[in-house]
Amino acid sequence: MLEQKKQEFSEHVKALQDQICDQMRAMDPNIELNEDIWHRSDFKGDPGGGGITRAFQGEVFENAGVNTSEIYGSINPDFAKKLKGDSDQLWAAGISLILHPRNPRVPTVHANFRMIQQGESFWFGGGADLTPYYPYEEDFKYFHGVWKQACGDDYEWMKKECDEYFVNHHRNKEMRGIGGIFFDHYNKGDLEQDFIMVKGLSEKFIESYFPIAKKRVNEEFTPEDEDFQLHRRGRYVEFNLLHDRGTLFGLKTNGRTDSILISLPGRCKFTYRYSPKEGGPHAQMMDYYHPKDWA
Amino acid sequence: MLEQKKQEFSEHVKALQDQICDQMRAMDPNIELNEDIWHRSDFKGDPGGGGITRAFQGEVFENAGVNTSEIYGSINPDFAKKLKGDSDQLWAAGISLILHPRNPRVPTVHANFRMIQQGESFWFGGGADLTPYYPYEEDFKYFHGVWKQACGDDYEWMKKECDEYFVNHHRNKEMRGIGGIFFDHYNKGDLEQDFIMVKGLSEKFIESYFPIAKKRVNEEFTPEDEDFQLHRRGRYVEFNLLHDRGTLFGLKTNGRTDSILISLPGRCKFTYRYSPKEGGPHAQMMDYYHPKDWA
Repeated sequence: MLEQKKQEFSEHVKALQDQICDQMRAMDPNIELNEDIWHRSDFKGDPGGGGITRAFQGEVFENAGVNTSEIYGSINPDFAKKLKGDSDQLWAAGISLILHPRNPRVPTVHANFRMIQQGESFWFGGGADLTPYYPYEEDFKYFHGVWKQACGDDYEWMKKECDEYFVNHHRNKEMRGIGGIFFDHYNKGDLEQDFIMVKGLSEKFIESYFPIAKKRVNEEFTPEDEDFQLHRRGRYVEFNLLHDRGTLFGLKTNGRTDSILISLPGRCKFTYRYSPKEGGPHAQMMDYYHPKDWA
Repeated sequence: MLEQKKQEFSEHVKALQDQICDQMRAMDPNIELNEDIWHRSDFKGDPGGGGITRAFQGEVFENAGVNTSEIYGSINPDFAKKLKGDSDQLWAAGISLILHPRNPRVPTVHANFRMIQQGESFWFGGGADLTPYYPYEEDFKYFHGVWKQACGDDYEWMKKECDEYFVNHHRNKEMRGIGGIFFDHYNKGDLEQDFIMVKGLSEKFIESYFPIAKKRVNEEFTPEDEDFQLHRRGRYVEFNLLHDRGTLFGLKTNGRTDSILISLPGRCKFTYRYSPKEGGPHAQMMDYYHPKDWA
């Protein structure tokens, strides 16, 4: 049963990778794709799986990464203890994606969904979060609304975990964006049910994001919009390099640097004591980078 | 004697701050200065000193920070152990600066010089390192030559420490730039002599950098030069946020975030698997981001 579900999850994330890439191409027909298929060795030097990294550069999506991987084999015993501690044999499969649109009226989005097995233990993790740069409240309500409907009773805690995770603690606890859902070590005791739940969530990603992107992609934007976007992308870089557990873990365990740092935005800006003009849409947006009931 | 030297060092770094700012203004007459004088509380909430942050934005220097601080008082006992461990009373004064020129033919430079006392122990730390974007070997030889002359017998180990410190370990151990000097816990047992040595080094900073900047500032540059510079600035951000002990320590101990992250470049770029065009000056520059005898 477990082996069958692992294979099914691995196939599912690869199919979802294709579907998401198709959505991107439909919006950005001349987008350039750089695909790398990579293999890894495990902690003991034995074959340990690998992944498919798809890096995009386009007119609509300035840069984006849509990656899948399935890895297995021995892990560092110290790291094993930090997980569930019962085995130094790990298996993990997942999809991880980040889209940085060029137009500041279109939000950046990040999502990942993964299944992990360590020895006899297994669990799921993942989430999806939105980083908008313009105060279109209706878009934020829509994004959270899709996830609320998909998560049911789990929405409340998954939304709270997201609000608490994507936070720049060194910037007065400002959030990276307007949240979404986040969950880890998800195992309610029924593999079949958990699998259906997490697979179902991953299938909601397209519905949660692309209608917003399509609605906003042809909007005119101002130089101020872009300046605000580039500074917020700077904060995105700060979060990913200072706080994101996945990024730091990946880099510290000799993960594939290029696939990990594909999450960084193409262009960004840093300015001493930056803050947007008072009273405008960007100052309003700053108020939204804190936990708020959207759905 | 120690108290007198502490006061003298604190006054010295403030005078040096003014001299360096004068050099910048001479090259960049319309540069904008944003000066912030800040105060801090120590670990117990008592007054704990403060600093003078000078943030610049100009035509020659796209962004720059020239900061001094003198802090004192109680520190977190866990952190005390990580230093010398003999006291939770700390005093520190220093200057820290980073200049990000707009023209990619002019190198970025960073330097800092500090004096620290913990209980009965005291020591000095500091260094200066260059991050060029164009392969002007004569400039690199000049920069290292000034420091070799200033450091004397200490140059060899100070250069080696610098080569080993400013390294992006996650990027195949590529250096941030072409090095310089770096030293910490410097105490040879004679306060008077150590003071003269480190004060003398700090006074060499202007000579080590400004002649290079003046020589290159009016050079024409190409869009390729700028693209390479912006990507190398991206690597600068990666180093500062992932590896720099000063940055991470400052942020984790609730330092003044804006003064710490003043080190980040105004604009930068990240591109999946970026590498410069083969056979050109930027590909040649890549070879120089590894330890090399320059002086």
